[in-house]
Amino acid sequence: MNTNDPHPNRLVIRGIAALLACLKHHPKALREVVATAAFAPNLAEYDAAFAELGVKTRIVGPIELVKTAEGPCDDVCALTMRPDFGLARISDFAEWRESRESIVIADGVTDAADLAAIARSMAAFGLKRLLLSGGTEKLSFHPEAWNLSRGAMEQLRLMRAAALGGLLKLVEDRCCVVALSPEIGRKIDLAVPVRVPGRHLALLIPGGKLDPDIQPRVEHCYRFPGLVSQPGLSLSEIAPLAIAWFASTPQPRADGFLSRKRARHAKDKGSNPTS
Amino acid sequence: MNTNDPHPNRLVIRGIAALLACLKHHPKALREVVATAAFAPNLAEYDAAFAELGVKTRIVGPIELVKTAEGPCDDVCALTMRPDFGLARISDFAEWRESRESIVIADGVTDAADLAAIARSMAAFGLKRLLLSGGTEKLSFHPEAWNLSRGAMEQLRLMRAAALGGLLKLVEDRCCVVALSPEIGRKIDLAVPVRVPGRHLALLIPGGKLDPDIQPRVEHCYRFPGLVSQPGLSLSEIAPLAIAWFASTPQPRADGFLSRKRARHAKDKGSNPTS
Repeated sequence: MNTNDPHPNRLVIRGIAALLACLKHHPKALREVVATAAFAPNLAEYDAAFAELGVKTRIVGPIELVKTAEGPCDDVCALTMRPDFGLARISDFAEWRESRESIVIADGVTDAADLAAIARSMAAFGLKRLLLSGGTEKLSFHPEAWNLSRGAMEQLRLMRAAALGGLLKLVEDRCCVVALSPEIGRKIDLAVPVRVPGRHLALLIPGGKLDPDIQPRVEHCYRFPGLVSQPGLSLSEIAPLAIAWFASTPQPRADGFLSRKRARHAKDKGSNPTS
Repeated sequence: MNTNDPHPNRLVIRGIAALLACLKHHPKALREVVATAAFAPNLAEYDAAFAELGVKTRIVGPIELVKTAEGPCDDVCALTMRPDFGLARISDFAEWRESRESIVIADGVTDAADLAAIARSMAAFGLKRLLLSGGTEKLSFHPEAWNLSRGAMEQLRLMRAAALGGLLKLVEDRCCVVALSPEIGRKIDLAVPVRVPGRHLALLIPGGKLDPDIQPRVEHCYRFPGLVSQPGLSLSEIAPLAIAWFASTPQPRADGFLSRKRARHAKDKGSNPTS
């Protein structure tokens, strides 16, 4: 098999963390592993796994490794081929409501580092489903996004969403859209995540301003965290914060009532300095 | 004045954002402004301010600009000289208690990007006082830390802290130390910031593991946010999240009681889906 064929979904991943994540989550995508002679012994324990998948390991010098990896790399890289991501359909939203799965939508993100920050934050806080729309799908096979995510992109279930505004209108009875915006919207109160009965949540993260086609579908719009008087944080800086806050939404109880947390300031001895 | 003298506190800042922040917060540090001919007209409105400070503006070609800036730069850079930062003293902690000023301590941070992330997050959430200890002070004039912070370092009041473990022991009656740790400690609940009556708070951010000398001084230790089963987030990724959580601590009321927030789940119509 000639791995140098131009292939739209050809993706080179760099580093052992990304390789192990790929081996764990998408083993069939692997085509070839390329390592330096110095690093090869570290791969010995995975040889059986590679052999079973029919993946060859090639040993090259440091200069050829950098060339093969198409970027800075000093240990190991791997060539992978991936299927196209599926398109999100209306029936998927019904499923996500059933399973109460919160989803994240990256809309119009143009910087691979921003997408990587979103992916890393989602993986760290246990969110799985990432929809790419409004141009973000162009980054879906961008090597920098996968490399900067250090394996986190492998853990996510990526999907494309076409005509997002129309799609969200069709599913508004089962999906509540919470959007972030660099400039407008309410202040995020870390203690109060958004909760909606009977629907699941989607966090919409725009690469720039909110798309006017999508704005009417947004039920809650929050400003990027930070004081208004200060220079704003960037998208990749607010991603961990916004996703931690979003993921802290308590799950509804099995009987349908919203769960209640214990009162924050339950009285106990010593909580009042004058008592 | 020869600005090429080796000077321990010589610092080149790059980009207009950093220059304006320096002009606003530390105008006396400015020594020379170097810009390309293409960018110079954008500086016209600051000419009077520069003249008053006795700062010359030099116009150079793009190649010389990059050389002067000691790094990638395509608009403007500035040479600055800064005084050494003061050492934090015991009396400072008494002052901070009086003014209820929360402080951040960066201990043993070795990566300029991490320090820049801490500075940016502090500026965004309105914290001012950053103590550098355990090697972090080596980064205090590191150009990358200042450049990556995009002006945020200028807004902070930086101080050094020598023998931090001993210092914190001496001030433990007025300062409560909240530490982060990559691996051990409680889970951060975004809804519950740490509050202590009669003392002010210090957030200790270690560059690696907690220093054993400092560990006995830590009253509350929190793990880096994120699920335990997932690959951890890095220090620069958790900095905005941890500092937003830390800065959300409500201030005590003037009468000495802790302020209480409105109950989170106050009953109102529609809050219960079956009502």
